[in-house]
Amino acid sequence: MNMFLNSMESKEISTFRRISNTLQHLSTYHLSLPVEDGTENEHPLRSPDIDMLKHLLDGDFKRDRTQIRQLIQNSKSFEEIHLIESISPEVHRERTIQAVREVIDLSIVSVTDMKDNPEKFLSWFETVSICDLSVVLKFAVQYNLWGGTVLFLGTKKHHDKYLNDISNGKLLGVFGLTELGHGSNVQGLETTSTYDNATGEFIINSPTWTSQKYWPGNISAHGQMATVFARLIVDGTDHGVHAFIVPIRSAPSPGKPYGEVLPGVEIRDITQKSAYNGIDNGGLLFRNVRIPKDNMLDRFSCVNERGQYQSTVPPNRHFAAMMSVFFIGRLCISSISLTAMKSGLVVALSYSHNRKQFGPPKQPEQPIINYSTHQRRLIPWIARCYTLDFTHKYVVKSSKSMDVLHSYSSGLKAVTSWDSLVALQNARECMGGQGMRLKSRITVLRAHSDMCTTGEGDNIVLCQQVAKFLLFKYNNSINEGGSFTGELEYVNNIHRPTTENWRSLSYQQWLLEKREFALIKELHKKMYTSNPSIKPNSEEWYHLWDKCLNLAIQLTKANVDRLVHSIFLQKIISITKESNASTLQMLKKLCCLDGLVQIQRDLGFFCSTGIISGHDKWVKLDDEINALCKEITPFSRELVEPFGIPPRFHPYQNSLE
Amino acid sequence: MNMFLNSMESKEISTFRRISNTLQHLSTYHLSLPVEDGTENEHPLRSPDIDMLKHLLDGDFKRDRTQIRQLIQNSKSFEEIHLIESISPEVHRERTIQAVREVIDLSIVSVTDMKDNPEKFLSWFETVSICDLSVVLKFAVQYNLWGGTVLFLGTKKHHDKYLNDISNGKLLGVFGLTELGHGSNVQGLETTSTYDNATGEFIINSPTWTSQKYWPGNISAHGQMATVFARLIVDGTDHGVHAFIVPIRSAPSPGKPYGEVLPGVEIRDITQKSAYNGIDNGGLLFRNVRIPKDNMLDRFSCVNERGQYQSTVPPNRHFAAMMSVFFIGRLCISSISLTAMKSGLVVALSYSHNRKQFGPPKQPEQPIINYSTHQRRLIPWIARCYTLDFTHKYVVKSSKSMDVLHSYSSGLKAVTSWDSLVALQNARECMGGQGMRLKSRITVLRAHSDMCTTGEGDNIVLCQQVAKFLLFKYNNSINEGGSFTGELEYVNNIHRPTTENWRSLSYQQWLLEKREFALIKELHKKMYTSNPSIKPNSEEWYHLWDKCLNLAIQLTKANVDRLVHSIFLQKIISITKESNASTLQMLKKLCCLDGLVQIQRDLGFFCSTGIISGHDKWVKLDDEINALCKEITPFSRELVEPFGIPPRFHPYQNSLE
Repeated sequence: MNMFLNSMESKEISTFRRISNTLQHLSTYHLSLPVEDGTENEHPLRSPDIDMLKHLLDGDFKRDRTQIRQLIQNSKSFEEIHLIESISPEVHRERTIQAVREVIDLSIVSVTDMKDNPEKFLSWFETVSICDLSVVLKFAVQYNLWGGTVLFLGTKKHHDKYLNDISNGKLLGVFGLTELGHGSNVQGLETTSTYDNATGEFIINSPTWTSQKYWPGNISAHGQMATVFARLIVDGTDHGVHAFIVPIRSAPSPGKPYGEVLPGVEIRDITQKSAYNGIDNGGLLFRNVRIPKDNMLDRFSCVNERGQYQSTVPPNRHFAAMMSVFFIGRLCISSISLTAMKSGLVVALSYSHNRKQFGPPKQPEQPIINYSTHQRRLIPWIARCYTLDFTHKYVVKSSKSMDVLHSYSSGLKAVTSWDSLVALQNARECMGGQGMRLKSRITVLRAHSDMCTTGEGDNIVLCQQVAKFLLFKYNNSINEGGSFTGELEYVNNIHRPTTENWRSLSYQQWLLEKREFALIKELHKKMYTSNPSIKPNSEEWYHLWDKCLNLAIQLTKANVDRLVHSIFLQKIISITKESNASTLQMLKKLCCLDGLVQIQRDLGFFCSTGIISGHDKWVKLDDEINALCKEITPFSRELVEPFGIPPRFHPYQNSLE
Repeated sequence: MNMFLNSMESKEISTFRRISNTLQHLSTYHLSLPVEDGTENEHPLRSPDIDMLKHLLDGDFKRDRTQIRQLIQNSKSFEEIHLIESISPEVHRERTIQAVREVIDLSIVSVTDMKDNPEKFLSWFETVSICDLSVVLKFAVQYNLWGGTVLFLGTKKHHDKYLNDISNGKLLGVFGLTELGHGSNVQGLETTSTYDNATGEFIINSPTWTSQKYWPGNISAHGQMATVFARLIVDGTDHGVHAFIVPIRSAPSPGKPYGEVLPGVEIRDITQKSAYNGIDNGGLLFRNVRIPKDNMLDRFSCVNERGQYQSTVPPNRHFAAMMSVFFIGRLCISSISLTAMKSGLVVALSYSHNRKQFGPPKQPEQPIINYSTHQRRLIPWIARCYTLDFTHKYVVKSSKSMDVLHSYSSGLKAVTSWDSLVALQNARECMGGQGMRLKSRITVLRAHSDMCTTGEGDNIVLCQQVAKFLLFKYNNSINEGGSFTGELEYVNNIHRPTTENWRSLSYQQWLLEKREFALIKELHKKMYTSNPSIKPNSEEWYHLWDKCLNLAIQLTKANVDRLVHSIFLQKIISITKESNASTLQMLKKLCCLDGLVQIQRDLGFFCSTGIISGHDKWVKLDDEINALCKEITPFSRELVEPFGIPPRFHPYQNSLE
């Protein structure tokens, strides 16, 4: 702390002290206190403490992470042969499952950690996602989805019977939610589960071609059971979508390691994809397959002993109750694209420090990272990785209510996956043709992140949920007198900062708050002005809302930008005591750079609404971002070292080939 | 014409008449005349005349295009088996060459058309690029690059000896320019060609590992000869980079269809890439390989009978002279990404019209194209395809000087390839998981467009050349008294339009002109203020320029935006007589939408420089774009029909599967 304070001006010290002291009184998401960091007066940047950065990124699970990284670095099963040779999906799938078993053998987490220790689970998942992403997606299928339904939607009888074998990989399973005809609108799915009172069984049926369960991994080769979401019909009444465990293959037997497809079950293979070819995605149809009554996952509802449907949640909340428990899964998918972004940046940075091209007249050629365009295309994404990483860790630890967590995880997944694609495209282009060799992994990582934009909830659909959450909060607040609480509490404390210095983190925070609030108000105006008592779910709402979709997406991005910036600020403040001055200074720079880049991305909104005024702001902001990138560049390799990408996935460390 | 005039208000009629009449007096690139289109007063849109649109896009080469499309649709060689099965690069390469031979057998163009009929050549190239893009890239290697060097850098003796066999595919060859150590900075390449006066031969040598020719297709499997760019050494003097024909494999013989690698030649294969695995990219090293004197491509320079070097261009212009002839090749690469964008849009649009999801309360589910986000993500790219298509056609026909054409083709290639990637990413996400199936082609097309961002000149490097071209033009103009000519002539006529109606095409044109000129002035200020007599190529210049790189890229984009918008306007005006009213109206809408989207993309610059002022412009512009997309959506399938994508590449026309 003292070293850090010594490096600051007295005004900064008092600001930081004030913030540190008041942190405990702050609403978690509000941090608009002035952080008069005045970075422009600081000493030149120095190397950060890499161990401290590693500590920040590895969190409390350094030992677990190290074990996983060593396995990935050393085991033959994690060689990415599909990046060098054409291999068939069959070979890729077998390698994937072999790698999965080796990770299981480390015995780091079990399915129940999703509930008991989500922080540990996310940390484990994120580290596994360093390798071929088919491996981690196989875990997403097996643990988060198949295991997750049993854990979160089942009761003790299911937990006792299945969870252990799901964790140890003996019982591979399928998450049968989406259908060919219903991807996003899963409430409209067609599969039926009809209760037969005579036998006490459910009859699972796929009434149409479009009702086939479509996409889930573990269908076409490996899965022995499936959680099937189906419309529950009891005595001719449709009670909506519920979940059931349905066996689809027989138990493994000698010579048949994945058993045989059971009668009444039909399976299709989904052919080549742009990524995850180690996953056996498929289509799954049921021809009146009978399952015992106990196979209904009955945490929220059941068919009772008298053959009657009963539920602990109202019908219109039932589906949401089932879905909300998957927020950890969404964070996991988001962390796949975050790790892909980190991995790609490590490769592109190495290459750009080694690769030389052009130079000043009559002087040797320069490493291409020295060019300001290369810096602009790579350095801000390093900052972004830190920002998003801190936010993932914050959200998984948060004890907020489920609707808040749903909003956080949805917005964060959308922004992370979109950002990852842009970052990886920049990384690709920064490597020239080498970026197109599969060996460099860049395009493969991009293909994997690509899935994350529509997997585990289409980003556009999720953004709408975030925007509606904020809109309803706002509408309730003004109906109740205009005091903002919860996620909108920050609005009560938006004060124009004393500085408009681009590098002031508090100025940036103010800008981000102003923008988000302006977007909420605009959305509210559009939805409620003509009819203040408009009903959500009415036809009027449906048509008005459609006109606001782009606005809703902008609002979600703005919401996430504000959130991640405030979380980064908190992180800086919270480690002030334990960090040295150069590390804190570096983190402030990263936070500052990330803030400025987000502001530049949307400068049109800031300027056209008057939040930013004055002449030539575009040029000045652009110059500032250039300057920041240039300051950080000499430390860029140090900054990505804590990402912990094993050397095996780092093909351009020393030279060209 | 009359039908069209009948549909317009009298003010519009007079405007259009005036424009038609004055068109012939206009500078080709200046079209800031008021086009008071007042689209808001028009009748509702009606179906355009598809034949007219086809005519616009097919140009004068409808018959050729039809022949190629039929071949692609019907021949077994054009089945994209690699999208369904894993096939080895060897199999893919053989299929590619088979498809190439079938296209050659149509006898539509020859290599000399690049010079004699570039418009026809581009049209042919663009149509071939509908199929698996390995096929068209094989042609780029064989015709544009290998053939292009012989045609443009060679003389009659080379033309007579080689061109026929290059055109008919008997003599496959390599374009040996880039080296492992030199991709963009090709002037720094290391391969040497030393003249041996005793024998009258050149000795081709690769002195280092990094001097290997790296990337070119036709290296690792098929090429029999190579144009090798090497430093010419005569009597110990290095005369810089020149081009030589070097045999690398023996002639085909029974059982050896591609001959055998010749002594002194070493060949490496480049392993799996993210795209173009039908192309045999490789590395190529020479161990003092001797070639006859006649193998020097001697259009600009030669070693004369007395063994002395002589050249018709000054040494510092020699390399540029050699490179400038490849502008047609750059247009071809650009058209690959344009065609990829078209192909992807056709698929995503079909899917989005068929796929239903969600809907108003208690009503059937709606096609997802009905949602405003889907419209925003797809419809503007249809407009963009028309815009860019017209521009490619304009540029290839243009009789401007080579420096202008270099600037046009460079900027256009950069913008088209970047846009194509964004369009295809949107298409991918609009198709949900189906977009990740290789069968949908979307991700494959994206991977192909991706190459175009760094192939045939890295976009960042090309943007710098465009920006420098404009900067020097501007600097010369103000040094010579401030009257602007040539590419800057438009500056003399920038007048604030009478309307600020977003839909006014002349207002849009004014905005685009203002922005480009503001960027030129800003760049000039940064480069010349501190030292008005700064020398390009000085060290001072080098460092200042590096600080301006992002500005230079923004300027290039702004330049292309203005250019393409004015070309679209010209196109509309030029076809007024032959088109019906609904078609003209539709083209105006497309032009308008494209203009608005480009303006929104950079609204921060427009607002922060005061070019756009007033409150809430972001929201108003966003609403306008939403509204335009909604108007055009019902006609979207009609609008992509003229792209001419054969049914084979159109997998979601009728239903899901």
